[in-house]
This record gives sequence, structure tokens and C-alpha cells, in this order.
Amino acid sequence: MTISIAHLGPKGTNAETAALAYAKWLWQEKGQESVLCPCPSIAQTLQAVAKGETELAMVPVENSTEGGVAITLDTLWELDKLQIQQELVLPISNTLLSHGKSLQEIKTIYSHPQALAQCQKWLELRLPSVQLIPTNSTTEAVQQISQNLNAGAIAAPRASKLYNVPILAENINDYPDNCTRFWVVGLTPTTEGDRMSLAYSIPANLPGALMKTLQVFAQRNINLSRIESRPTKRSLGEYLFFIDLEGRMTQEALSELSNYTEVVKTFGSYSILPIQGIAID
Amino acid sequence: MTISIAHLGPKGTNAETAALAYAKWLWQEKGQESVLCPCPSIAQTLQAVAKGETELAMVPVENSTEGGVAITLDTLWELDKLQIQQELVLPISNTLLSHGKSLQEIKTIYSHPQALAQCQKWLELRLPSVQLIPTNSTTEAVQQISQNLNAGAIAAPRASKLYNVPILAENINDYPDNCTRFWVVGLTPTTEGDRMSLAYSIPANLPGALMKTLQVFAQRNINLSRIESRPTKRSLGEYLFFIDLEGRMTQEALSELSNYTEVVKTFGSYSILPIQGIAID
Repeated sequence: MTISIAHLGPKGTNAETAALAYAKWLWQEKGQESVLCPCPSIAQTLQAVAKGETELAMVPVENSTEGGVAITLDTLWELDKLQIQQELVLPISNTLLSHGKSLQEIKTIYSHPQALAQCQKWLELRLPSVQLIPTNSTTEAVQQISQNLNAGAIAAPRASKLYNVPILAENINDYPDNCTRFWVVGLTPTTEGDRMSLAYSIPANLPGALMKTLQVFAQRNINLSRIESRPTKRSLGEYLFFIDLEGRMTQEALSELSNYTEVVKTFGSYSILPIQGIAID
Repeated sequence: MTISIAHLGPKGTNAETAALAYAKWLWQEKGQESVLCPCPSIAQTLQAVAKGETELAMVPVENSTEGGVAITLDTLWELDKLQIQQELVLPISNTLLSHGKSLQEIKTIYSHPQALAQCQKWLELRLPSVQLIPTNSTTEAVQQISQNLNAGAIAAPRASKLYNVPILAENINDYPDNCTRFWVVGLTPTTEGDRMSLAYSIPANLPGALMKTLQVFAQRNINLSRIESRPTKRSLGEYLFFIDLEGRMTQEALSELSNYTEVVKTFGSYSILPIQGIAID
């Protein structure tokens, strides 16, 4: 059976690159065939799995420069049945594409807000008076500039080949180790990995409430690799906390955690896929 | 002397409404005149104060639906000399503006990504196949639609009057208590308020490192009203933590905190301005 993988499209986005790397790994390691399904937004990518339209979704969780991807966390909490199957970390190289011949000609730059943010210092230094225009994906930015000699798009180098737009400047991200964590999400419960993710809400305005929950991990010497707060959306000052941890939590630890929380949701126990050797052109 | 206040422009943004409310309070309570200075981005708004081009800046910090405003936190950490003078909380009512006569005619909707996100459920329900186009501000969205009968913009009700575009649907935010916290930021050190904000980095991969810092607050019965993590941008898995707390920290408490952190930066001690009675038309 061929597995379907939803991702933010169109062809040429970083999410598609992550999905291609995963598909290649599935084929090489498991002889498993897969097909990619581009979606117009990250929320729709996750909903595709929840509705059973695709088996898996590849979604960005966190970028090393720009931080958490709010829509991914919020949708996981809301849908409340998706489980993380695997994680992969993709190096993100931002490239300025344009049909123009030099930086001096560029008056407008299109890209996804995350990519614009990852390159903001470079842009301030080299193109201080350029107009920045946000788009829904880096690929949409490339499609926007078409034959305009005074416009540029920030996208992955792969988009240059796919859409036949020359590269005007390479590696323009402000921080050299720019990378994005992606999660492969599905409906199968996962319990066997060496990473675990969960989220919980805590009572508002209770001094030490968050600390009490963190003690549950610290007492068991569990290292939290990340904690991120998100609003409950009900009222200013009420939060959910998304936790990624190394190892797993026992049922006993989860039960103690529930003493200090309102709602706890677990998103599975998964491993990080090594994709260094998987080249995608 | 007239005080200058930088804010995200152009005229009609929610940041401008917050700046107008603050200017009105300054005049009514202190007889202080002020002038507003619209800036093209939030980063440039804060840089205007750091460079001495304006005395104050009004910047969004956190929205009850969409969470923290990353660029505000990252720029405060980076500039490292701005102090919060005051906070104000503005109710945010999103309105669909259009020259079209009915929802059925609308094919494209423009707005700032934060506003699009605050209305995503309403949009999915009422206009599932509409194309969403991000803009740099809600005002820019209103300017984009000009006389296009098939386009709409999500913006504050105030923008309808300012730019003479009819309101097609009111209060379209998904959550009724949608509001945004704003900070008034300047160079004057502040120590006298009943709220305090600070941020710190902690050593990576040390189990319990975050919990040790939170114990400093809990042991003194200091309530944290918010904690938000941001990447250090150097490497995936290294974070800064932004803390808002009720009350103040003594020098002794700050000194204990420094035992468990790498770098601590304090952003001042300030009060929340009551602006309920200040009407802005």
C-alpha cells in the first residue's frame, strides 16, 4: 500500500523537502512507497490526517532562529488525536531568487514571514529600502515575481531549479545554523521512542503552579529539551505549556503531573530520524 | 516639550489606536502633549527609541488568541537598553471591510497574519474557499483592496472611517475576549511599578535548569503572570525565557537568579494603565 503524506505546498517549500527526505528514507529502509499531497496551509495539512484523507502529515514545529510554529502546536492541541511518529531536523538555507541581474535593481522582496524574519539583518544591511511583502509560502513568493526584474523571492535553493529563476544571493540567513524541526504526524499511537511531547494547561494566577509541574520532571531527572507557552485563547493570562522531553514518562509520573494541571494531552513517544545522508535535489 | 511616540503604521493600525489612547491619557492626566510617529515595522519602532529619534514606542507584546509577538521580545533582548514605562491592554475587534455588497462576492481577503489567525475559524466557516493574502499591517490590507469589489480586508473598525471602506461584517474574531497587551517603551529606567519583566538564558541540556530559576520566584511567593521561551538563534535547543511577574524582585532575588542563568536582562518595573474610559474614534 502506498502511504500519503500531506505537507504545506506548492512544490518547492521546505516542508516538501522534509517530506521528500522522509519518503526516501521510507523507501530505502522499509521498501515502503509513498506519495506527497501538497496542502494550502499547515492547519489543513494536519486536518487532512485527522479526517483520514492522508495517512501522515509533515509539519514544521520550530525554527532555530524564529522559534515555535504556533499554528502547528495550536492545531495539535485542538484536534486532540494526532500522534507524532517521527522527528526530523532540516538545515534551512535561504536563497534570494530573481530575474534581475543585480541587488541594486531589486525594489520588492516576497517571501513567507518566517523566511523574511530569518534574513532580516541581511536585508537591513544589503537592501535597507526594499519593500518586503509576505506570502503564504516561499514557493508562492517565487511564483509572484514571474518575469519582474525588480522583484526578488526568498526561497530554498531547490525552488530555483523547479521554477527556473536564477539565484542572486546564496545563504542569506542571519544565523548560519538555521534549521527547522519537523514532525511526521499520524493517527497510530506511538510509545517506543526516546523523545516525548505533551502539553497541559495549569490553573491561572496560582504562584508556583508551573514550577510544581516542572518538579515532576526534575525529580525524575528527565531533561526538558523545550518548553513553549501558548495562550488558551479564552482569556489573556491563561496558558498551555508544550513540553518536549528526552526519554519517556511513566504512567505514575503522568498521574502525578495531573495533580497540578487542568488538562494533559500526550502527543506520543518518537525518535529523531537521521537524514544527513539523504540528498534531495 | 512635546513627546514623540513611535508605533507600527500607517494610520489605522491597532498600535496607532493604543498610541492614541496613551497620548490622550498623557494629556488628560499630566497635561503632556505628544505626537505620533508611524514606522514601517515593529523592529524599526523600537530602534527609533534606541537611536533617540523618538522618546517612546508603543509595541504589541502578546495577543490573547495568537500569543507572543516574537519580534518585540527578540528586539528588546537585542537592543538591551529599553525599559518598559507602562502597559496597556486594548480590546481588538476585527472587522471585514469591503466595497463589495455581500460575502458571496469576496474572493480574496487581505490582512496582517496576526489578524488572519485571530479570525481563522470564522473564515473557514463563512468563506472556506477565499484566498488569504498576508500584509505588513491591517492598514496596508485596507489600502490594497482600493475599489476591488471582490476583495476584503480585516482591520479595526476605525480603519473603515479613516479610509472610507464600508464594513461587511463586524466582530469576526474567533474568540470574543480578543485583546492585545502593549508596552510603552523608553530609555528612562523604571523601578516603581507593580509589574516587572525580565529575560534570561540558561545552560542547555541541564536537567532541571529551568526549574531552578523558577524556584527563585516560587520561594518568594512571586506570581509569574507569563513565561515565554524564545530561541537564542545560535543553535536549535538553546533558549531565552521571558518572564512577566507581579510585584518586584529584590536585588538579593536577582542575585540568586544569576546563579542559575547565563545572562539576565531586566526590562523595568511598570504599571498597567486603565484605558477603559479613553474612547478613540
